[in-house]
Amino acid sequence: MAGKAKKSGVRFRPHFKTHQSAEIGKLFRQAAVTAITVSSVDMASYFSEHGWRDITIAFPLNIMQIDQINRLAEKVSLHLLLESEETLLFLKKNLRAPAGAWIKIDTGYHRTGIPAERIDQVAELASGIVGTSSLSFRGLLAHSGHSYHASSPERIREIYRDTLGKLKAAQQALHSRGFSEVEISIGDTPTCSLVDDFSGVDEIRPGNFVFYDITQLALDSCVEEEIAVAVACPVVARHPGRKEIVIYGGAVHLSKDSIIRADGSRAFGYVAKKKETGWGPMISGSYVASLSQEHGIVKASEGLLEETRIGDILIILPVHSCLTVNLLKDFKSGSADF
Amino acid sequence: MAGKAKKSGVRFRPHFKTHQSAEIGKLFRQAAVTAITVSSVDMASYFSEHGWRDITIAFPLNIMQIDQINRLAEKVSLHLLLESEETLLFLKKNLRAPAGAWIKIDTGYHRTGIPAERIDQVAELASGIVGTSSLSFRGLLAHSGHSYHASSPERIREIYRDTLGKLKAAQQALHSRGFSEVEISIGDTPTCSLVDDFSGVDEIRPGNFVFYDITQLALDSCVEEEIAVAVACPVVARHPGRKEIVIYGGAVHLSKDSIIRADGSRAFGYVAKKKETGWGPMISGSYVASLSQEHGIVKASEGLLEETRIGDILIILPVHSCLTVNLLKDFKSGSADF
Repeated sequence: MAGKAKKSGVRFRPHFKTHQSAEIGKLFRQAAVTAITVSSVDMASYFSEHGWRDITIAFPLNIMQIDQINRLAEKVSLHLLLESEETLLFLKKNLRAPAGAWIKIDTGYHRTGIPAERIDQVAELASGIVGTSSLSFRGLLAHSGHSYHASSPERIREIYRDTLGKLKAAQQALHSRGFSEVEISIGDTPTCSLVDDFSGVDEIRPGNFVFYDITQLALDSCVEEEIAVAVACPVVARHPGRKEIVIYGGAVHLSKDSIIRADGSRAFGYVAKKKETGWGPMISGSYVASLSQEHGIVKASEGLLEETRIGDILIILPVHSCLTVNLLKDFKSGSADF
Repeated sequence: MAGKAKKSGVRFRPHFKTHQSAEIGKLFRQAAVTAITVSSVDMASYFSEHGWRDITIAFPLNIMQIDQINRLAEKVSLHLLLESEETLLFLKKNLRAPAGAWIKIDTGYHRTGIPAERIDQVAELASGIVGTSSLSFRGLLAHSGHSYHASSPERIREIYRDTLGKLKAAQQALHSRGFSEVEISIGDTPTCSLVDDFSGVDEIRPGNFVFYDITQLALDSCVEEEIAVAVACPVVARHPGRKEIVIYGGAVHLSKDSIIRADGSRAFGYVAKKKETGWGPMISGSYVASLSQEHGIVKASEGLLEETRIGDILIILPVHSCLTVNLLKDFKSGSADF
C-alpha cells in the first residue's frame, strides 16, 4: 500500500484503528510512514506516546475530550474533523494550541459529514475555519464506506470515481471562492485495494488492509493469502451427528460481526488448519455458524470432523479483523501487543 | 433472585460471566451467595483470587488449560463439565487434585451436551466419572438457551417444564442404575426470571439478570426499570434531515449484537435521557440503527432530535449486557471495575 501511494504521488496516512498496536506501527515506520489516522482521542494519545507526531483523528470531534485534545495539540501535529458550525464555535473558544482542520464530506455513505453537493454549507464552514486563529484549513475528507456494500470490484471502482468526482467538484467550488489550498483525503480499504491510480487525490487513509479479513475477501479487495490475522481456538467438544465442532472462541473473541454465505447461512468466521507456523488454506464447507459469549459452533466438513479431536486447535479467520483484534488485544494473548 | 431460590429451597449459584467483577461479586456475598458459576478457566482464576471458594466452570472442559485447572482444583472446590469419554480419559490421566464433575445434558438448545434421551451414553459417562478417583459425580447440568428464541413468557415456562421433565427422567434412569446422588442444575435467565417454583431442581445458575438488557426486555423476562447497565455516549454530530444523531459509541463499546424491532428494522441499543443520577425512561421511536467501530447512528424521534445538542450525553441501553460489559470493562471507564 505504501508503494502504491508513492507511485501515485499521494500522502499515505494509514488508519491505525485496525491494529491499535505500537509494535505494528514500527512496520509502518520501516515503510517510511510518518503520518497516521486514528478513530479516537485515546488512540491518538496512545500513538503520540509511541513517538507518532502527525495524527488525524478521523472521527467527528468529541468536544467532551477537549482537555485531552489540547494536550495532544501542544505535543503533535494534530488534525481534526469538522462538519458543523456548532463544533467550530466550541473550538474557537476552547482550543488552546494549533491544529489542522478537515471538513468531513458525505459522498454517499450517509454516516457523517456535509453532503458534497451542499457547497454553500461547506464554504461557510471553511470560512469559519480560516477565521479561527488556532485552526488551519486542510481540505475535504471523505470515507466512502458504502464500498463495503458493493456487489463487485467494478462497483467499488465506480464508487471511487463517483467519490473523487464529488470531491473535485467541491474542491473547485472552494477554489473559485478564493480558498487557495484545499486538499482531498479519501480512505476505505476496498477502494484503496482495488484502485491503482490516485491522480487528483492528496492523501489516502486505508487501515483494514494491514490484516484484511473475510469481509474484504468477499469483496475481492484481497486474496485469501493476504489475510494476516486469525484466532487459534481450542476444540472442546464434537457433535458428529449434526456435523458440529464446539470451540473455545466466542463473541468475546471474534465479535458478533457476520457475513451471509452464498447459501444464505450466516458465518462468524472461516476455518483453517494450524501449521508449524501460521495456517493452511480455508477448509471448504466449514465455518463458524453461531457464537455465544465464549462458545463457537463450527459447521464442519466430513473431512474436518473426522480428523479433529478434543484439544486440537482450529484457526478461525475473522469476519471483521478490526473488532476481533480490539477484543483479543485486551486479553493479551500471544505477544505483548496481542 | 436469591430470595426466590431460597423460597424454592434450591442452591443459588449465579453465573458471574455477565459482570466479571469482584466488586459486584461483593453484592452477591451480601445476599449470602457462596457458590458461583463462570464460563472460563481465566474467570475462575480471577474470582478465586477474590476469595470465591466454590466455582463451577460451565463450559466444556478446555483440556489445554489443564495446568491452570490443576492449580485451581488445589485451591478451591472446583466443578467441571463433561460430555465425552475423550475428555474424561484426559482428566483421569492429568487431573492432580479433586474436582466435582457434572454431565452436560442437551435439553433442546443443541449447542453442547449429551441429548437427554441418550440414557446409556449418560450412564456410561457417569460410571466413568465414579470410577475416576480425582472426580466426584455431582449430577446433570443443562442450559436451555433455546428460551432466548421463545415467542412468549408462556413458551419460556413450557421450555422449563420440558427441560425439567427431561432431566428428571434422566435422573430417575440413573437412580435405577444405582447412582444414588444425582443433582439437577439449570441455568438460563429467562426461565429463572419467569418461573417461581423450582421444585425438583437442586441448583439454579442465572447470570444475565444482574443487569438484564434489551434482549431480556423483549422476552418479558424483565421490565424496563430492571435494566441496570447502560452506556453514556457523547453526541458528536446531528443530521436532522435524516433524523439521525451520531454518538461516540460503536461496536467496540456496545458489541454488534442486535435485535429485530416490531417494524423489521434492526436495533443495537435503545435510547434514554441522562438524569442527575441514572437515566429516565426509554425514548419511544429512538434506537441505535447502525454501528461502526466507534460510531453509533441513532434514529431519533422528533422530540429527541430537537432537544439534543453536540456534547450532550445519550444513554444507550444495550442489547446484550454481557458483551457490552465485557467490552467496556477493558476500557476502565467509570469506577475501578467498569
